[in-house]
Amino acid sequence: MRICRFSHDEEVSFGVLDNLDDQGELTDNSIIAILRGHPFGELDPDGRVIAASSVKLLAPILPSKIIGIGKNYADHVVEMNSELPSEPLMFLKPNTSVIGPNEFIVLPQQSSIVHHEAELAVVIGRFCKDVPRERVAEVILGYTCANDVSARDVQQNDGQWARAKGFDTFCPLGPWIETDLDPTNLAISAYIGSQERQSGNTKDLIFSVVDLVSYVSHQMTLLPGDVILTGTPAGVGPIIAGDEIEIAIEGIGSLINTVKDAQ
Amino acid sequence: MRICRFSHDEEVSFGVLDNLDDQGELTDNSIIAILRGHPFGELDPDGRVIAASSVKLLAPILPSKIIGIGKNYADHVVEMNSELPSEPLMFLKPNTSVIGPNEFIVLPQQSSIVHHEAELAVVIGRFCKDVPRERVAEVILGYTCANDVSARDVQQNDGQWARAKGFDTFCPLGPWIETDLDPTNLAISAYIGSQERQSGNTKDLIFSVVDLVSYVSHQMTLLPGDVILTGTPAGVGPIIAGDEIEIAIEGIGSLINTVKDAQ
Repeated sequence: MRICRFSHDEEVSFGVLDNLDDQGELTDNSIIAILRGHPFGELDPDGRVIAASSVKLLAPILPSKIIGIGKNYADHVVEMNSELPSEPLMFLKPNTSVIGPNEFIVLPQQSSIVHHEAELAVVIGRFCKDVPRERVAEVILGYTCANDVSARDVQQNDGQWARAKGFDTFCPLGPWIETDLDPTNLAISAYIGSQERQSGNTKDLIFSVVDLVSYVSHQMTLLPGDVILTGTPAGVGPIIAGDEIEIAIEGIGSLINTVKDAQ
Repeated sequence: MRICRFSHDEEVSFGVLDNLDDQGELTDNSIIAILRGHPFGELDPDGRVIAASSVKLLAPILPSKIIGIGKNYADHVVEMNSELPSEPLMFLKPNTSVIGPNEFIVLPQQSSIVHHEAELAVVIGRFCKDVPRERVAEVILGYTCANDVSARDVQQNDGQWARAKGFDTFCPLGPWIETDLDPTNLAISAYIGSQERQSGNTKDLIFSVVDLVSYVSHQMTLLPGDVILTGTPAGVGPIIAGDEIEIAIEGIGSLINTVKDAQ
């Protein structure tokens, strides 16, 4: 099932998306069954079904917190001249950095080196703490695509990553949440225009989705809608104004954003 | 004016606190005028006035984000064998770390060295971005006491501070928000029982409140209720189970929490 969040008629709602094409892409026939309230627990459709083409898709969730994981693909660790971590390396992104599909990534004046990072994002479905590995599946709502946009010069300057990864628009999420997905063997790519920049597979995650959700939940309570970004494979590189950056994950879809300069 | 947040009769409300004693402490005569909704913009008292002794004070705000500032008093930078920053050093704490007055700080099993850090907390009152220094006063709701509890061994291990400063219960805030306060010359102290552990003054902040709010708002959008922790003076040190830790700030009051071990 695909859960989306969208604006229509000056309302913002969650909905269940259906009638995609064979490639999992939106067509003129795609429809959305509108949900009452939130998508956690039992879904409550309000009976309305509308054309997906009539709405603007938003980030599929506005998380209370976003936990990023650094250095979680060996090939990316090598390209950053860094070392493999012995446990997951956590950082936080503020929820003011979240944007949805087709919104602009704005390059801040503070940085001259902004990179894309294609990542599988896990969306938490339940209030949880200290989740054992064998119960991780119970607390996951689903998966979406993320771009962990990072200002490398700021990251280097500060040492702490909060600012470098926390600028407004630096966390594109979307296009929707896929709830039925095995996350252990998914192709994950980034493209600028038609040019492939990153090409990895979630089977190469150093710490798996199960590892990460269990680990993070042992450090802090997770709330419905919280997002864990699972790390990026090799191939990160600069984005500049005018670039159209696409994050594609097998079984989910494509998250596309255009880059522009701040005023 | 002092704005508090509290639970009473299975409701959670904001209120305006009055009739404190000459030392700014609660007495049996202290009262709370209950507000409708939130304390941002024009206040909307619902007409009820109740005894402060009849309620449980909660953290005065649940922020959408908490921005911490590292190394912002020179004497603390020296005690940490660190270097003075050339601009404010930002990090983030998750809002799941927030507790209120008289709630327990729980020592996580992951750490054997947990420190207190007494800090002046700025509570943002308005949605804002790129705030010029001369307009900072317009976006501040008020000030409260904070304890930026930090697991030093985890902080050292990770490099990134999100986990070390992000455990549940690691951000005591309170006891209330003082809205009428000049933050430029306030004594700030930490006590364990009757023993003074930290004793500083906000006049020694490397980056002032005006500097910090303007700076942070140039990095990310701030939302009503967001909290900026302004850094800690020298004297940080370990807390252990059974300790009663008090953060006292001139013109605000005292935030007291007891420390206990995780089960």
